[in-house]
Amino acid sequence: MVTLNTRQKFYQVIFGTQTKAGQYFDIVLILAILCSELVLILSSLEGVATEFSNLLFVMEWFFTLLFTVEYIARLYCSPRPWAYAKSFYGVIDLIAILPSYIAFLFPGSNYLLIVRLIRVMRIFRILKLARFLKDSNILLRSLLMAQRKILVFFSTVAILVTVLGALLYAIEGPENGFTSIPASIYWAIVTITTVGYGDIVPQTDLGKTLAAFTMLLGYSILAVPTGIITAELSQEMKTQRDLIRCLNCATSGHEADANYCKKCGAELPQHP
Amino acid sequence: MVTLNTRQKFYQVIFGTQTKAGQYFDIVLILAILCSELVLILSSLEGVATEFSNLLFVMEWFFTLLFTVEYIARLYCSPRPWAYAKSFYGVIDLIAILPSYIAFLFPGSNYLLIVRLIRVMRIFRILKLARFLKDSNILLRSLLMAQRKILVFFSTVAILVTVLGALLYAIEGPENGFTSIPASIYWAIVTITTVGYGDIVPQTDLGKTLAAFTMLLGYSILAVPTGIITAELSQEMKTQRDLIRCLNCATSGHEADANYCKKCGAELPQHP
Amino acid sequence: MVTLNTRQKFYQVIFGTQTKAGQYFDIVLILAILCSELVLILSSLEGVATEFSNLLFVMEWFFTLLFTVEYIARLYCSPRPWAYAKSFYGVIDLIAILPSYIAFLFPGSNYLLIVRLIRVMRIFRILKLARFLKDSNILLRSLLMAQRKILVFFSTVAILVTVLGALLYAIEGPENGFTSIPASIYWAIVTITTVGYGDIVPQTDLGKTLAAFTMLLGYSILAVPTGIITAELSQEMKTQRDLIRCLNCATSGHEADANYCKKCGAELPQHP
Amino acid sequence: MVTLNTRQKFYQVIFGTQTKAGQYFDIVLILAILCSELVLILSSLEGVATEFSNLLFVMEWFFTLLFTVEYIARLYCSPRPWAYAKSFYGVIDLIAILPSYIAFLFPGSNYLLIVRLIRVMRIFRILKLARFLKDSNILLRSLLMAQRKILVFFSTVAILVTVLGALLYAIEGPENGFTSIPASIYWAIVTITTVGYGDIVPQTDLGKTLAAFTMLLGYSILAVPTGIITAELSQEMKTQRDLIRCLNCATSGHEADANYCKKCGAELPQHP
Repeated sequence: MVTLNTRQKFYQVIFGTQTKAGQYFDIVLILAILCSELVLILSSLEGVATEFSNLLFVMEWFFTLLFTVEYIARLYCSPRPWAYAKSFYGVIDLIAILPSYIAFLFPGSNYLLIVRLIRVMRIFRILKLARFLKDSNILLRSLLMAQRKILVFFSTVAILVTVLGALLYAIEGPENGFTSIPASIYWAIVTITTVGYGDIVPQTDLGKTLAAFTMLLGYSILAVPTGIITAELSQEMKTQRDLIRCLNCATSGHEADANYCKKCGAELPQHP
Repeated sequence: MVTLNTRQKFYQVIFGTQTKAGQYFDIVLILAILCSELVLILSSLEGVATEFSNLLFVMEWFFTLLFTVEYIARLYCSPRPWAYAKSFYGVIDLIAILPSYIAFLFPGSNYLLIVRLIRVMRIFRILKLARFLKDSNILLRSLLMAQRKILVFFSTVAILVTVLGALLYAIEGPENGFTSIPASIYWAIVTITTVGYGDIVPQTDLGKTLAAFTMLLGYSILAVPTGIITAELSQEMKTQRDLIRCLNCATSGHEADANYCKKCGAELPQHP
Repeated sequence: MVTLNTRQKFYQVIFGTQTKAGQYFDIVLILAILCSELVLILSSLEGVATEFSNLLFVMEWFFTLLFTVEYIARLYCSPRPWAYAKSFYGVIDLIAILPSYIAFLFPGSNYLLIVRLIRVMRIFRILKLARFLKDSNILLRSLLMAQRKILVFFSTVAILVTVLGALLYAIEGPENGFTSIPASIYWAIVTITTVGYGDIVPQTDLGKTLAAFTMLLGYSILAVPTGIITAELSQEMKTQRDLIRCLNCATSGHEADANYCKKCGAELPQHP
Repeated sequence: MVTLNTRQKFYQVIFGTQTKAGQYFDIVLILAILCSELVLILSSLEGVATEFSNLLFVMEWFFTLLFTVEYIARLYCSPRPWAYAKSFYGVIDLIAILPSYIAFLFPGSNYLLIVRLIRVMRIFRILKLARFLKDSNILLRSLLMAQRKILVFFSTVAILVTVLGALLYAIEGPENGFTSIPASIYWAIVTITTVGYGDIVPQTDLGKTLAAFTMLLGYSILAVPTGIITAELSQEMKTQRDLIRCLNCATSGHEADANYCKKCGAELPQHP
């Protein structure tokens, strides 16, 4: 019975975000992830890697052991350990620690260390913190509302990019850098998103004309996602404002970041 | 009488989108188009083209014959075959299959195979699928509403780009890469859309000053299409929301993706 | 008396846009300007210039004489010829024809022909056509309303660009392409507008960090003009919709491109 | 007693913006800062620096002495001189004059002159002028309202850029220009903001695919700040419009730049 209780407490701290301890655990974990990422980033710098190789080695193993303990703790306190191990974050958590051990057991497999980089994926846990903030809800909700419109938009862009890429491949050909249709589609995406690296550029007059057309078309087409998100966001903010209603005097229409009723000064209820 | 009936049924399936069979036909056709495009894209890759040349050849002819059958079926079941053959999609459908046959009859004319790329235009039929989605209607309608504003905007951009291109040609001249006025207009479009390839860049101080002015001007000017589309989209979404009215309790103002009335729970009518 | 009457009629046709004849004159003039521009653009192409030199010469003189006649006609029918000659368009109209004559009198001064390019400025007269369109009014009015906000915005951008350019000049120095502060400001504008030519790029780590900061800052800052124009445009479109009121049944709130009242079908009054 | 009065008057002029004299002082100061910046910018141009070295030297010392006098005056009239000296602008004001003196005392330390560039930071005082303008208030207030949403957005971008940079480093490696993870993060920022210098570009097929994904993702993600600012700006402008109420007839809803009531013609109260 006691063990179970400890387990449940652990579960609340490690997986939950409701208790103070759970929130502190999340913050400490995110700091640890950020630090371990910093170590990885620093060891990719040639100068640092040779000079501080010992320190980086120690740090690396410190974080590996820390994340191993965390992984075991998660398995231990989870009511269904197997379900956790198979979940998205379970796999990521395992991948985050495995490469260091494999590289230790088979010294030649340094190449595997690159997989450690996947540890960065764990950073996405930081987004769980974002849930504490009122504002990220509005952003997420309006993105979700716009989901299908954005899908329709991306399908259109995918078709356009294929057609334009294929046309440029036919016009310019491999001698002008458009070596294949996939390479030309890559060019079309670089152009239509206005990134414009300049590593592949049309050389013929017809190619340049079509490229100019692509840019202008792309620009108007790409105004659409901004329009979609703005429209949804305006609507969502209006809805939020109407949702908050003072429990004292029933006034609604408060600003998104208001904590007190603008009419009677009573504390406003938080967003659900 | 029976033949006519078969024809009409065929017509419903091949040209229509109302029946289940017609929708399945469209989906299968689009998958076939996408696969045939994939074959074309793969055969543009040098490595793949030499290794799998036989497989690609077979696939190519499989799709050519398939689209030939489809073309004949369309001609057969169409009430006015000649009108279909002369229509936009009729010509595209013919162009999609002709090059393979011509290349077969006149072996030297491999160059014509490039015309096969026009087959990608058939992908636009995929947009017929989009009509099933509620959201693409809103997008299309707001683009149509903004049509004339976008035209006015593009005329202004065309004039600006000509003037700026001509000025840069006069300032920089052919020795700095601005070989002709069309080339300079191409530069102006690359700059004003913020693509910025960097293949042509001003070298003189006056040219750079004017280029900086072009960028800032371009940026503010190009904020206009986003503004237009956002404003139309907001209006259209509001109109849509007001349009849907619950048949049970006559409440309007439902969210765009609502299926049930938020007041009485009755199923909402679909968009027209 | 008769001469005066002819003059006034001429004035109505040449300067006015109210009469049918005046509108036709404007359209013909704009076509002539566009054609003369096309001749200029074509003669900047090396291949065309040598092959069709005679034709281009004849065309050039045809348009020069045409615009000379137009200029004299404008002087003749204008109630205050001197005021017209000193006005912006009066000077442009003179500059548009002078270079050809000077090049004819002093054969060596071919360099002056470049000034002919200023003739492109006359294209802006095309914008007078735009006044016929309902939609360009809304665009112009919302740009005018946003005028001061855009000015405030551009002052901020000017300061930011100076500070960032000076910092990068101090960090990178002439050896990395940042040859002077003006050159660095040019780089900052190229970066902050997301054009990104790549002709000048930071090489040091500190420079790259600051460049990354510039991009992200620039991106958020440059979201502002879009926001300004969208907000003004939405407001203006709403105002326009409220302005049009059916003269028959007094219903307002019609769509921007509506010609008939949606309630009683009576023709709607046009925008003022 | 008299000294104190002079001091207070000085304080009103130098630090205040309420009196006419204070506003003139600010304008003169800003002009002096702009001129001293111009001198700095000009002396960074090689040609100008050698030809006008004497004039630039005199100008430089004129502005250094002027700003020294200003600094002493600020210290003198400030009620708490030490608090001013430690404040942000106090430090900037000191840094603006120190380098010239140090370079004079230790002739070899020309390198320190670069620190003079920090003087550009003083330009931000110009923003105090902006407070006179009604419109900059609306811009600032909507940016402040959007503050937290923009913070959430930038955190997401920071994570995305780290993950994408690390992935590209793993895929492309130092041989294709992705020399370290920070360099790859720099590339990711250049790509996601659509700047696209082209100094580092992916070479492998997998890298190009991921780059294309980065561009499209980045484009939709970066539509968010525009959406946020537009939505806040629309709301703020509406609020402003409702705030102004005619003191004569109590009509509200006037245009943002209206000076007189549209109903009764009485002068409108200014924004608070």
